[in-house]
Formats: sequence, structure tokens, C-alpha cells
Amino acid sequence: MDIQATDIEPSPHKDTATPFYQPKRIRTVLVANRGEIAVRVIRAAHELGMRAVAAVSDADRDSLAARTADEAIHIGPSHAAKSYLNPAAILAAAKTCGADAIHPGYGFLSENAAFAAQVEAAGLIFVGPSSQVIATMGDKAKARETAQRADVPTVPGSDGIVHSLDEARVIAARIGYPVMIKAAAGGGGRGIRVACDAAQLDTELPLAQREAQAAFGDGGVYLERFIARARHIEVQVLGDGNDVVHLFERECSLQRRRQKILEEAPSPSLTPALRHALCESATRLARLVKYRSAGTLEYLFDETRGEFYFIEMNTRIQVEHPVTEAITGIDLVREMLRVADGEPLRFRQSDITLRGAALECRINAEDPENDFRPNPGRIDELVWPAGPGVRIDSMLYQGYTIPPFYDSLLAKLIVFDESRPAALARLDRALRELSISGVKTTVPLHRALLADDDIRAGRYHTNYLEAWMTAWRARLAEEA
Amino acid sequence: MDIQATDIEPSPHKDTATPFYQPKRIRTVLVANRGEIAVRVIRAAHELGMRAVAAVSDADRDSLAARTADEAIHIGPSHAAKSYLNPAAILAAAKTCGADAIHPGYGFLSENAAFAAQVEAAGLIFVGPSSQVIATMGDKAKARETAQRADVPTVPGSDGIVHSLDEARVIAARIGYPVMIKAAAGGGGRGIRVACDAAQLDTELPLAQREAQAAFGDGGVYLERFIARARHIEVQVLGDGNDVVHLFERECSLQRRRQKILEEAPSPSLTPALRHALCESATRLARLVKYRSAGTLEYLFDETRGEFYFIEMNTRIQVEHPVTEAITGIDLVREMLRVADGEPLRFRQSDITLRGAALECRINAEDPENDFRPNPGRIDELVWPAGPGVRIDSMLYQGYTIPPFYDSLLAKLIVFDESRPAALARLDRALRELSISGVKTTVPLHRALLADDDIRAGRYHTNYLEAWMTAWRARLAEEA
Repeated sequence: MDIQATDIEPSPHKDTATPFYQPKRIRTVLVANRGEIAVRVIRAAHELGMRAVAAVSDADRDSLAARTADEAIHIGPSHAAKSYLNPAAILAAAKTCGADAIHPGYGFLSENAAFAAQVEAAGLIFVGPSSQVIATMGDKAKARETAQRADVPTVPGSDGIVHSLDEARVIAARIGYPVMIKAAAGGGGRGIRVACDAAQLDTELPLAQREAQAAFGDGGVYLERFIARARHIEVQVLGDGNDVVHLFERECSLQRRRQKILEEAPSPSLTPALRHALCESATRLARLVKYRSAGTLEYLFDETRGEFYFIEMNTRIQVEHPVTEAITGIDLVREMLRVADGEPLRFRQSDITLRGAALECRINAEDPENDFRPNPGRIDELVWPAGPGVRIDSMLYQGYTIPPFYDSLLAKLIVFDESRPAALARLDRALRELSISGVKTTVPLHRALLADDDIRAGRYHTNYLEAWMTAWRARLAEEA
Repeated sequence: MDIQATDIEPSPHKDTATPFYQPKRIRTVLVANRGEIAVRVIRAAHELGMRAVAAVSDADRDSLAARTADEAIHIGPSHAAKSYLNPAAILAAAKTCGADAIHPGYGFLSENAAFAAQVEAAGLIFVGPSSQVIATMGDKAKARETAQRADVPTVPGSDGIVHSLDEARVIAARIGYPVMIKAAAGGGGRGIRVACDAAQLDTELPLAQREAQAAFGDGGVYLERFIARARHIEVQVLGDGNDVVHLFERECSLQRRRQKILEEAPSPSLTPALRHALCESATRLARLVKYRSAGTLEYLFDETRGEFYFIEMNTRIQVEHPVTEAITGIDLVREMLRVADGEPLRFRQSDITLRGAALECRINAEDPENDFRPNPGRIDELVWPAGPGVRIDSMLYQGYTIPPFYDSLLAKLIVFDESRPAALARLDRALRELSISGVKTTVPLHRALLADDDIRAGRYHTNYLEAWMTAWRARLAEEA
């Protein structure tokens, strides 16, 4: 069974000395962020042959980002308003280090349309969508309207203020009970009443209007369907300003005070048909605004009805992006930088396949036994889990002192495996290996969550964790 | 575009609370090895819900394996002959801890057929092939004979002693010049002469016979084709005693004194047609012996002729297995344990696909500027690279003191990416992030190798590294 020389195709390694990527416009990127996401962006830039400069506040001069970057440039005092949230300081730093582009990470200035416009006006590349798209999609009402134009379902509601009880009754009957009566000027969960039927609507609506007037100086209320057991599912998209693809969804329903704690991809609650419909709807919406860069469309999924509703779009990279990278094999931050460098999308939708399952634990410097009080301090000992299917995205090194000025996210532990049960088993062993001493972290919470049958089975929703934690705290108190 | 409840398939998460795996026969596995591979096996066992016990010598009481295992059991003094190479001590430990199975790792007793037989005789499960298969495939002559029966090409040669010049001429003409004349009693590169044509054969053969007689007391010589630029390519197989699948190949041509330094998968030197023929040949051979467990068939690949030749089989897990795991998404050590637990193979060949490219650097405690002298000592500071596509398999933690008794492998840095150029870029950034202080390591060698154009292009062979290192050392000496 000898292979003859004549059968041989041309030697495959002739051209493989070609560099992976040669930057066209971005020689140097300024990372206008801190913590793990700054390190993440620096890594992607390095892999693309770009120079990466870390913008650092006083407190971050010794950060892992500063150590990993080619250069660290000081942007001001520890207080974020004067450094990471200060457009002038960031732009001055970009000028000083000769950056061609600014990557804003997440949080801070990442969804600030005015900042993006300033970057554009300065002749620099904003690694994200255009300032115009940020402005449009950052406005909840405009985003909802855009979704409707794209034939993407939104939470059924009154689409604006209801002016009379009669009008309210008609709308409530259409969207179906129970309905929420929400103060137009409210927010963050304040000014909400629930009506389970028409009779209750008759009673509650006037009360809600009077309350809104008293609380916000504006009596306007609107109606929205009440979803008792909603799941938070979001779709990752990637666009180049012309075309858009989706990279499937993430499920992020495990939240504490709207902070995601544990995320996974794919969602355990979707059927293939629903997954397809959901992801296609996201692509449709992102295409309508000619979306450029990485973005995420957040949805509520009503499991009982099997319906999903677009709620908002995040026009930036998200904390939980690694679970998507794990199941698709696509490096999202690198793709953001390539698109910003002027490259067209490298994937058609059919090139992107979903493989396996991934979970991410957010490890925060917070004391879960003490109402999650932030717990900055010095990392005395640090042993990361490793081996197959384990990824750590972190800002830590042994001996590092966590500054008290910023959010408490220290690290993300991401596991990937062939299936969800396998990923759960892998997460379990990874959490066993993990050791951080010196500060209190949310690791004990993750260990406890992983032991929960409902979570293991994927049976949870956005209110699940708060209730679960009440029980958990009670158990901890009993044990203490 | 509302999704109606009637369209919905049954909720997909109903059964996902099922554990990933429930061991049938193996509740406890004794890991009869040390270093990174012991940690690797413990991780796999934990993910499968098995208890893992680390067998430790005096020197390894504080090893990462001892810390990661559920229990560490002492098997004797630091000297390997009295601990890791001592079957009685291992069997006694298995009895003490109630192990159902013994995983031998690589090296030590892993390919010792007598030990495997003892394990079987004790009623325990040897995590590997049967002692009989180890015995057959561990014998080079028998392995070669088996390969020929399976129609797998071996290095063309005389298949035994040549008795006369006339016979040698006929054989040499058949296998093609240049040919090697090898002393049957020689080994390790000693007693070899090369003849480039018939005239040279006439001169060299009698000389070789006389030399062999003088050096080894046995004048027998045999002929083998001389391959000037051979590449070392090996095929990973996995069997359950009935069926066998391959998991594609690894290229391991970068060797120093037959020690692999840098490995990759897939091989950059194979065309798809050759890859298919090579991997199919390996499956054929492994099927013939009804191979069980993970195994590797080593080949020489003659790039000039486009021919590959089976040379030997390793009937155990190999150091470089993670590059295969990266490109196939299959956890080899877990599959070994499942098969040992009595499970049939979970994959048909068509289920196994090759995706992306992976590279592995062996990080040894050796001083590359000082003839690779072993350099044990205390790890003062340790910063692993992390982020997407980076895997570390290691025995280290910060503060650990490397004992001087064993081989010098400290860690394997594995990178995975969408393509070989991408993986090279990722390896470059990972090596930039890596920092080990306290001992000298081979990291500077890897940084230098990665800067080499031929290596970047995949143009190398088994003699490449030795020549390259001569030049590198000269350059280092100049710079010093």
C-alpha cells in the first residue's frame, strides 16, 4: 500500500510561513479599560500583530494589563470619573502613544455614543459600531421600534402611555393577563403593579397613575405583559457594516440584582427550532442597522409560552463572550479588531457551527456570606485550575493587591466540553482545583450552585437565583 | 413572527440533570505515575466521577498530583526503581486504597507487559491494552511483522540478515539507494554505514560485517532504505478491544537526542490524501491486534518520496496527546478510563473531525544554554499564559520545589487556534506572557524556535533541530 509520488498533491506547507494577520490600519491599539477585559484585548491585539497600550489609572499601574501590554500609559487618578470615564484623558493618551484605534472593552465609555463620536472626530478608529448606531440602539424606545421594523418580537405591551381605563382594557385583553402597569418615568423595577385580570386592572390602573405622579412627577403609565418565569437569553452577532452573522445564543438567567453570575452557551432551554428563530431574528435586526463589530441582542424568553421578546442591544463585547468563543471556535475580540482594521467578515452563517457546551463562572472579590460586600485585598496564594477544556480570563497574579475603586470581577472561569453534562462535570473538578487566598470570593457560591439539581438540569429563570440565595443564606446561618 | 406553543418541541432540558458518567467497575483509580501526567489522569477521573488516588514517592509527597488527588498513598523512596518502577509497591498501594484500576501514565511501568499481567492477575483493571498486546507490540520485530500482515508499509529493507554480497545487491536494487547497512546487534545509531550505489555497497558491506563482528561479536548486518529527511509522524488510535478509530496524526519531528521538543497536530507536511492513507493504515494495524485503549503508531514519513513507514507502536498515552485532544475535541484520558470501565467506543470514525491546529511546547527544567543540563530547584514566581486557546498541563505551583530525581518535564504549553498560522501567533503571545523564575527552563529555546522561518513554515525533519541548535548555541555564545 505504498503511496506513489505521483499521487501526491502539492506539499501543503509551502505557504504556511505567511503571518496569521498583517494589520492594515491599526498598528497600535489603546485599551481604554482595565481588569480582565483589558488583558483580553491585549492578547487579541498581540495575536494579530498589533501593538497594545494599556490606559491605566493610578491604582492600575501595577495591573496585569499594564504588565501584559507593550506600554502602559497613565490616564489619571484612581477615581474612574477622572480616568476610565474621562474622554479627554483617553484621547490624550491615544495621541501620546500614537494609537490608531481605541478598544473600549465593556462598561466605562464602551456604549457612550458621544465618546465614540469624539474618537471618530479625532480621526481614530473606535473598535465598535459607529457612534450613530450606538446612539440608536442605546435608546430603548428607538431600539424597540427598530426591532419591530425588523419583525423581531418585543414584549407585548401598550407601545406608549395608556390614557384611559377603556384603552387599557382593550390593550390588556390583547396582550393577555397578567399585565404589568409600569410608570413611564420609573425604572430599575420601581413603579410597577401587576394586574391578573380585568377587575384588578380597574382597581390598579388609577392607583398606579396616582403613585407615578407622586413618585416621579409624571402620571404616565404603560402596559406590558407580565412574564413570571422569564429566561434571559442573548444572541451574539458580528457584523462588518455590510453583512451580519450570529454566533448562537448565551443563557444568562442566573442573576443577582441584575448582575449575571453564571452564564452558559448554548441555552439549555431552547429547542433547535426556537434557537434558529431566535438567532435569525437577531441577525435580521442587526442587519437592519448595518451593524459593525461584535454586539449582543438581549431577549426575554417566556418558556411557558415558548415565545421570545427582544429587550435591548449591547453595542460592545460582553463579559460572558468566552462561552460563545468556546462553542463556535471564533475569537470575538480578534474579529472586532479585524473588522475595525477594515476587513470584511470572514464567515458566512453556514461556516459557523455550534459544538459542545460551555459554562462561565464570574469570580468576584465579594463575600457571599456577608451580602456580597466587596472584598478587595492582597492575593496571597493563587492556584488556577487547568488542563483540558478550562480557560481562565483574569486580572490576577499571586501577590497582586486588588484596588477598592472598581467593580469586583476578578476572573472568569470558563469550561468547555462535548456536552452540557460533561461541562458540568468539568466545572465541578475545576472548582475543586481552584484556590484563591487572601480575599473572599464568590467561589463558594459557585460550588453551591453547581450542586443544585435545578441548575444542573437547566431549570432556572431570572428570579431563580434570588430565591435560591435566601434559602442558601439561611442554610449557611444554620451551619455557622 | 411570534413562535407558537404548538411549534415547540419538548423542552430540551428535561433530562440534563443526568450525571455525565456513572462508573460501572472503576470507583477508584490508582495513578501509578507522577508529574503532569498524574495530574492529567486525576482530572479525567474526577470528571468521570471516579475517586483518584496518587501514588507518591518520598520526593512527591507535596506534589501537585498529591494535592489534586482525593488521597495520596506512599509507595517508597524517591529513587524510581524502588517506587514508580516497583510493581510490588504499586500493587500493594492499590490494595491499600481499594483501587479497582491502575492508570500507568507514560514512562515507568506503562509499557511493561509483565506489570500489566500482574495487575490483571490481581483482579485489577490495567488502564491500557491487554498485557498480551503490550508484549506483541512492544517487540519491534513482532510489531513490524504485524504491520506487514496488516498491509501497513514498513521501512523497505532486507527483512533480516543479508548473507552475501550478491543477495545484498539484489535487495539494495529493490529498496533503492542510498541504503543503510546496519549491524543486527547494534542499536542507538551505532554500527551504521551508508551506501549510495552498488559500487559503494561492494566496498562497505564487508567493512560493515567486520566492524559488527569486532564491535558486537556478531557480524550479522541487514539493509534498510536510508531516508535523508525523515519526518516523525504518529497516529493516535483509540480502541475498545473490538473496534478501533483514529484521531488523526501528530507531527513530532523536532527532537533533540530523540526527545521531542515541540509537537503539532495536524502535521504540516501531509496532503489530505496522504493523511487519509496514513491514518487508515494505523486503524488497520490496531484493528488486527484488537487494540484496546489509547495507543500511538509511530511512522517515518519520507517527504521526498511521499511515502510513510510504520516503525513502532506506543501502547499507552503519550506526552503530546493534548494536541490531538485540541483538534478533535475528544478527551483521550477520559476515553481510556471509560473503555477500561467496560464501555464500548463512543465514536465511529465519521464522528471524528479535525478542526484547527494545535502546538505543544515541552517546558523542561533544563538550561538550554548549558547543554540542557537538568535544573531542578524552587519555583519562585510563576505566571502562566491564559485566555482563549491556551491550555497548561503542568506539575507546578508557585513555591514548589522540583525534586532532582526524575525527568525534567515541568509543563506543557498547548495552544489551539483556527489554523496553523493563527496557532503560531497565539503561541507567540502565550510565550510572551509566560514567566517562570527560580529555575532555568527551555522557554528561551521555544521562543527562538518560534522565530525560525523554516519552523514557522513547517519545513523541518528529525535532524533539523540538532543542526539548528548548533547554530543557535554559536549565536548565543557570540552574544554572551
